[in-house]
Amino acid sequence: MAVKEMLICPSCGHVIERYKNPVPTVDIIIEYAAGIVLVERKNPPYGWALPGGFVDYGETVEQAARREAGEETGLAIDDLRMFHVYSDPERDPRHHTITTVFVARGSGSLRAGDDAGGAGVFSQDALPEPIAFDHGRIISDYFSWKRGERRGMPCR
Amino acid sequence: MAVKEMLICPSCGHVIERYKNPVPTVDIIIEYAAGIVLVERKNPPYGWALPGGFVDYGETVEQAARREAGEETGLAIDDLRMFHVYSDPERDPRHHTITTVFVARGSGSLRAGDDAGGAGVFSQDALPEPIAFDHGRIISDYFSWKRGERRGMPCR
Repeated sequence: MAVKEMLICPSCGHVIERYKNPVPTVDIIIEYAAGIVLVERKNPPYGWALPGGFVDYGETVEQAARREAGEETGLAIDDLRMFHVYSDPERDPRHHTITTVFVARGSGSLRAGDDAGGAGVFSQDALPEPIAFDHGRIISDYFSWKRGERRGMPCR
Repeated sequence: MAVKEMLICPSCGHVIERYKNPVPTVDIIIEYAAGIVLVERKNPPYGWALPGGFVDYGETVEQAARREAGEETGLAIDDLRMFHVYSDPERDPRHHTITTVFVARGSGSLRAGDDAGGAGVFSQDALPEPIAFDHGRIISDYFSWKRGERRGMPCR
C-alpha cells in the first residue's frame, strides 16, 4: 500500500502530504589484497560496514558505486559486477533503503574517507565486530557465492 | 552531487528544501505460454511495457514484483529470479527511476489490470511497437541471456 508522509511547513505549519518512497543506495564489496574492504562508521548505527551510500538523483547505480568507493576508501575500482539487491525495510534502522550491491576489484592505496573512523581489509575468518546494517548477511552471501554455493551471481 | 528540490508550501508560499532521490521501481519479465507478457499503457509515455511499478515504502522488491505482476496481469508468479538493475536517469522521461528487474514464471489467466489498455504474450520475433521506457533494451538483454550470450544472470 502506498505510504504518504506529512511534511509540516516550518513557516506556517501547513501539512503537506507527499508519497514516501524507499531510498536507493549502493554498497560495494571491494576485493583488495587478500580480503574485502570494510569501513568503520563514525555515525550511528556504529560498526563496520561495506563502503557505500546514497545514489544521487541523476546518476546511475554504477556511477554511485564508483563515487562512493573512491570517497570512502580512496581506491579506484574496476571489474564492477552487480551482485544482488537487498531491500528488507528493516535493514537500516533509520529508514527504508534499497541497496544495489556490487563486487569490484580495488586498486591504489587504502585510506579512510572523512565519514569513516577507519578502513581495513578483512578475510572471512577474521571479520571485525559489530557489522552494521544487514552487511553481515551480504558478506556471508558473497563468501557463499565465491565458494560456488550460490549460482547465477553476480549478474552483469 | 546531491540534488535538492524546492517544495513550495501551498498555503504560505514558503520554500522548503529537500534532498531529491531517484525512485525505486520493479519490472517483471513474466514467462507465460510461448513468450513474455507485455501490457499496453493507458497513460504517457504510451506504448507496451513490462508489468511493473513503484516499490512501496515498507515492502521488499520481491513483494513489489509479486504485487505489481498480480495487479497488472492477473497472473500469479513463481520461480522469481533477480535479473538486473537499470538506472539510467533518462530511462523514464518523467523522473529518475531505478528499476530492479525480475524474471518469473506466470500462471493463471492473463487479464489486463485497470491501469492497462491491454495485455498480451509476445515472442522475440513478434514484439509490439512502440515499447516504452528502456524496456526494449531490457527485453533484448533478456533474450540474449536466454540464448546464453550473457553470463552470470540472473542472480538469486
